[in-house]
Amino acid sequence: MPHHPFSHAFRVSLHDIDAAGAMFYGHLFRHAHDAYEAFMGDIGWPLDRLIRAGDALLPLVHAEADYRVPLRHGEAVTVVLCPSEVGRTSFTLSYRFVAEDGTLRALARTVHVHLVPGGSAAAPLPQGLAAVLGGHLCDRDQS
Amino acid sequence: MPHHPFSHAFRVSLHDIDAAGAMFYGHLFRHAHDAYEAFMGDIGWPLDRLIRAGDALLPLVHAEADYRVPLRHGEAVTVVLCPSEVGRTSFTLSYRFVAEDGTLRALARTVHVHLVPGGSAAAPLPQGLAAVLGGHLCDRDQS
Amino acid sequence: MPHHPFSHAFRVSLHDIDAAGAMFYGHLFRHAHDAYEAFMGDIGWPLDRLIRAGDALLPLVHAEADYRVPLRHGEAVTVVLCPSEVGRTSFTLSYRFVAEDGTLRALARTVHVHLVPGGSAAAPLPQGLAAVLGGHLCDRDQS
Amino acid sequence: MPHHPFSHAFRVSLHDIDAAGAMFYGHLFRHAHDAYEAFMGDIGWPLDRLIRAGDALLPLVHAEADYRVPLRHGEAVTVVLCPSEVGRTSFTLSYRFVAEDGTLRALARTVHVHLVPGGSAAAPLPQGLAAVLGGHLCDRDQS
Repeated sequence: MPHHPFSHAFRVSLHDIDAAGAMFYGHLFRHAHDAYEAFMGDIGWPLDRLIRAGDALLPLVHAEADYRVPLRHGEAVTVVLCPSEVGRTSFTLSYRFVAEDGTLRALARTVHVHLVPGGSAAAPLPQGLAAVLGGHLCDRDQS
Repeated sequence: MPHHPFSHAFRVSLHDIDAAGAMFYGHLFRHAHDAYEAFMGDIGWPLDRLIRAGDALLPLVHAEADYRVPLRHGEAVTVVLCPSEVGRTSFTLSYRFVAEDGTLRALARTVHVHLVPGGSAAAPLPQGLAAVLGGHLCDRDQS
Repeated sequence: MPHHPFSHAFRVSLHDIDAAGAMFYGHLFRHAHDAYEAFMGDIGWPLDRLIRAGDALLPLVHAEADYRVPLRHGEAVTVVLCPSEVGRTSFTLSYRFVAEDGTLRALARTVHVHLVPGGSAAAPLPQGLAAVLGGHLCDRDQS
Repeated sequence: MPHHPFSHAFRVSLHDIDAAGAMFYGHLFRHAHDAYEAFMGDIGWPLDRLIRAGDALLPLVHAEADYRVPLRHGEAVTVVLCPSEVGRTSFTLSYRFVAEDGTLRALARTVHVHLVPGGSAAAPLPQGLAAVLGGHLCDRDQS
């Protein structure tokens, strides 16, 4: 059965652009996080509910991006997101930023660990979350 | 005795600029807030301590700005801040954004009310805060 | 004939929230601008094309907002936008931020003037733009 | 002769904090870029002048960060920045985010390539820039 990765759309806005005329590199992570929040809502683990419930935190311990071709004002972009690794206490998300002309503009990765509030060490991922992330694992061509 | 209003300096950064080549108007409020935080620390009412203590909140109920001359990448800016009104339950701050060439680039105003956590209505300003704000009131030429 | 004002939806994200637990007031203007860009695209005057063509600039000369009820993480918000005034050389946009529970959370207004690149004074609005803005004027209850 | 790496200070502001109560991970890159801009000005290659002159562009092709301990509202932070690699057509900057309590909170790296406007491939770094970057190379303990 074909696998349809999660995707999140946005348009490059006036304020995304910096003095060099392209999207500021730091803003890529803001859009990556918007895609992550939409994904978590979609799979039934909305971040706002997790934070309010206070029984699970998933802080980022690593983030990285590769910038291929600058994003310009007004471009429509699709962020394709999938978990590329699901470990015992952490998971890695992979993001592809594809413009409407089909070109890959940037890639990003974020690594999240599971912390139990009050605890100082990483804790095993909630079982339900590990299962649903595992069910959305990236195809081999996006990792 | 001459009155020296509080001032806060910043430089217009690459990411402050938008696709039209000037500082994005919304970022003026980020810089205004940085000046406000620095001011509150300077007068002995640091916001981070207020928020952590949890016994006073000073949410904004109104903000406005007038944009005179665009701010460009690399310009050094001084934000001159003073309270233009100190009421029973609220206060108004006035900000002037002056560039290193001496020109006034923008003006802003923010209105803050005092809320006691859990309360639904504005509460009288803490006496100490009202006093110190009153001691920094704007001169007649900046209000 | 009933008039349907333009609307733009967004969800309050993790990074919209500040240390006081509500949406940072300056971010309201970022969302207002996103609504403005979407509106301008919708009426056939996309900002990115205007800027690239270089024959019309519509800088903001004034912005203001009133904050009624804090926006919280995860809330779905609709920005209802309409021109409340269309003058000879400028126009005013009015924004209402309505949460999914139907409550009005914030109001904003931005005033834009028409500048011809290279010119130092406000110029008459392009005729086509004045006409289309005039066709979307706010109803009496939103101005 | 002791080597003094460049440093840039900032305070974690209200709007740096997100709904989880710590600095939003994407904002680390904004602060890294502020440190980079200050560094480039300090060594005589201010970005705003480079962009305006239009004869050299130094776009980022890679950025990454490791987050060790969350940054909280009001903390004073020093960003220690040095070039960890200076190649023929690119250079890598290394950033350490150290809080006032002396703890290392985060590390970041950015890779910049030299593009000549209009050219499609990376070009050799301007000789003067390569020399000055080489003169500030990181000590072995920060790379």
